[in-house]
Amino acid sequence: MPESPKKYFPLFSRRLKDARIKAGLSQKRLGIEAGIDEFVASTRINRYEKGVHQADEATAILLAHVLGVPLAYFYAEDDSLAEMILGFCQLNRADRNEVLDLVQKKLSPE
Amino acid sequence: MPESPKKYFPLFSRRLKDARIKAGLSQKRLGIEAGIDEFVASTRINRYEKGVHQADEATAILLAHVLGVPLAYFYAEDDSLAEMILGFCQLNRADRNEVLDLVQKKLSPE
Repeated sequence: MPESPKKYFPLFSRRLKDARIKAGLSQKRLGIEAGIDEFVASTRINRYEKGVHQADEATAILLAHVLGVPLAYFYAEDDSLAEMILGFCQLNRADRNEVLDLVQKKLSPE
Repeated sequence: MPESPKKYFPLFSRRLKDARIKAGLSQKRLGIEAGIDEFVASTRINRYEKGVHQADEATAILLAHVLGVPLAYFYAEDDSLAEMILGFCQLNRADRNEVLDLVQKKLSPE
């Protein structure tokens, strides 16, 4: 059971900014590539990154697609989970299953 | 780079319903335990599950907390990632690091 929810600087905002900077995109470029009108693109992304506005799921999926990260990455509450989500999603099916087997083994040691 | 975004039945809706049913909670009970007024609790959760309305991040965090799942679980685009997120978040730090090492090894085989 996770700890009771502390006041979060919006997770999505923090992860979005991290991923955008890692991808080397400006706010405007990210917004345009995610299909946002160029005249409002940078303002919109800036508001998402400041937590002023929240992207709906469809927009979040487009942003994740442009940044090459899984949607769930934006909502990873700790950095090791964020790292796991990024890595796991690059694995092929066989490797994923091997990693999942290791997790299951850790969760239910005979 | 993930495939281009297909039309998704809202991910959040699907995962929320799955987690609620797995937890054995009614829509009303889940809503109340997440701090939603009891007179609108079941309608609100029903709308989230139908994708009519979208929970903001603070509400999603409370729902995840009540259901005992990580927030990122709601946004896992495939079931093996969803299973991974659920399992990984139950691991202690040492086991997490071991799993992360395996993922890194798979991503960069010498």
